[in-house]
Amino acid sequence: MSANSMNGTATGRLTGVGTGPGDPELMTLKAVRALAAADVVAHFAKRGSPSNARAIAQAHLRPGVIELPLLYPVTTELPHRSDAYKDAITGFYEEAAAAVAAHLDAGRSVCVLSEGDPLFYGSYMHLHVRLATRYATEVIPGVTAMSGCWSAVGLPLAQGEDVLMVLPGTMDEAELARRLADADAAVIMKVGRNLGRIRRALAKAGRLEGAIYVERGTMDASRTLPLSEVDGDATPYLSLVLTPGWSARP
Amino acid sequence: MSANSMNGTATGRLTGVGTGPGDPELMTLKAVRALAAADVVAHFAKRGSPSNARAIAQAHLRPGVIELPLLYPVTTELPHRSDAYKDAITGFYEEAAAAVAAHLDAGRSVCVLSEGDPLFYGSYMHLHVRLATRYATEVIPGVTAMSGCWSAVGLPLAQGEDVLMVLPGTMDEAELARRLADADAAVIMKVGRNLGRIRRALAKAGRLEGAIYVERGTMDASRTLPLSEVDGDATPYLSLVLTPGWSARP
Ligand SMILES: C[S@@+](CC[C@H](N)C(=O)[O-])C[C@H]1O[C@@H](n2cnc3c(N)ncnc32)[C@H](O)[C@@H]1O
Ligand SMILES: C[S@@+](CC[C@H](N)C(=O)[O-])C[C@H]1O[C@@H](n2cnc3c(N)ncnc32)[C@H](O)[C@@H]1O
Repeated sequence: MSANSMNGTATGRLTGVGTGPGDPELMTLKAVRALAAADVVAHFAKRGSPSNARAIAQAHLRPGVIELPLLYPVTTELPHRSDAYKDAITGFYEEAAAAVAAHLDAGRSVCVLSEGDPLFYGSYMHLHVRLATRYATEVIPGVTAMSGCWSAVGLPLAQGEDVLMVLPGTMDEAELARRLADADAAVIMKVGRNLGRIRRALAKAGRLEGAIYVERGTMDASRTLPLSEVDGDATPYLSLVLTPGWSARP
Repeated sequence: MSANSMNGTATGRLTGVGTGPGDPELMTLKAVRALAAADVVAHFAKRGSPSNARAIAQAHLRPGVIELPLLYPVTTELPHRSDAYKDAITGFYEEAAAAVAAHLDAGRSVCVLSEGDPLFYGSYMHLHVRLATRYATEVIPGVTAMSGCWSAVGLPLAQGEDVLMVLPGTMDEAELARRLADADAAVIMKVGRNLGRIRRALAKAGRLEGAIYVERGTMDASRTLPLSEVDGDATPYLSLVLTPGWSARP
């Protein structure tokens, strides 16, 4: 694919770049090379807190590269299922896509950093669906957070005929419990402030025993412990729960 | 962790190395560095066909490194659920673990190559459960085949509150259909000779439309097409099916 803008300048290429789960050594050769060649590097962050993906990729940013921070509006005070929240976040993605498109139209290549793998629950996806039909686009996959976490723990997760479910911790408690009871192996993402509900759902499904909590997997100050030993109902954003499935080992 | 053998020699370190899905550029920096330092590189293969993981990592093997091929016994003529098959395969894993352990006992570091991510349906897991309690062990995660495939296709798979299921294509047809009907997004692994059954299960679950078939994702001679357009009931071993889930896009 290649495209031209109306004034005859070739438009730039959009690349979604997976940075892996945290350890900068877990970036791929392809991601490193893409960053070395990028005109612009964009990254999502909350206002006031630095981008995780940028922190992971930092050592590989080209000196002098143009940085484009895409700052989420402060929306935590709105309930996430409200129309007001949906309008705010949709507006934000539209503006972010327009900001990236302006660079592409000017002929500049843009790498959008994405923690883990870009197309796996990543913010990059909101740009991809808005821009990939209009610009030459490539996605460089990354090591997911779950792979980073189970490898750090050395926990074999799924093998043979095991069914693995990836469950967002934002789900309703009863639905989460139903899914967990029906899974061989499970990964619960987006733990953070949902921990209390997740713990109750695991208990209801009879899966609390064996569940492992991993915080900041593969990063500095990482923490791993049985979920049953985690205190309180809220943990940092970068945390997930692993429920291993592999039981019938030959 | 560190360990010593009875004769006082320090035992070597075991490292499970994820090679990523196929494109050698999708190896991580960490995997490349581990291979550069390894005394021994082990890889699983079928007798007569070269190891996929070795082919991916080939450019990064140290000249003079000791190679340890772990060759599956020819077992395709035995039904996979028979006791005879289970005995043969268990015996094979025991021998493979002993062969790796002999190098570790002699103080040599051993990297075991694993296509994609080592602890995600990988053969390395059979060595890990046999050796990780006895030797200093590290697992280097890799980009999974599914991440490689959905990125190559540019297909956003799961976002927000989507539930993603990873389903082995070896599953029973009715059970596969039940799972598919209950998933937002799904990845069906181990397609190969199971394609006919998988196609019928997708149809039964109302999910045939939208299902994408990817063969040799991120490799040379890769092929992608709607599953409904794939002829026949058998495809190469390196193939999977993606059923995207992300519908409610803000
Ligand atoms: C928006 S999702 C992004 C997932 C990412 N694209 C991936 O491929 O894994 C963010 C969630 O990923 C998980 N996560 C990301 N990095 C992590 C880490 N280093 N350790 C534990 N969990 C992590 C947390 O559950 C977090 O809430
Ligand atoms: C034993 S599993 C290993 C999975 C691997 N450890 C991973 O992380 O993805 C082998 C299955 O992975 C899938 N697979 C591996 N590489 C692939 C590729 N390049 N393209 C499509 N499917 C692939 C196929 O479904 C194959 O049957």
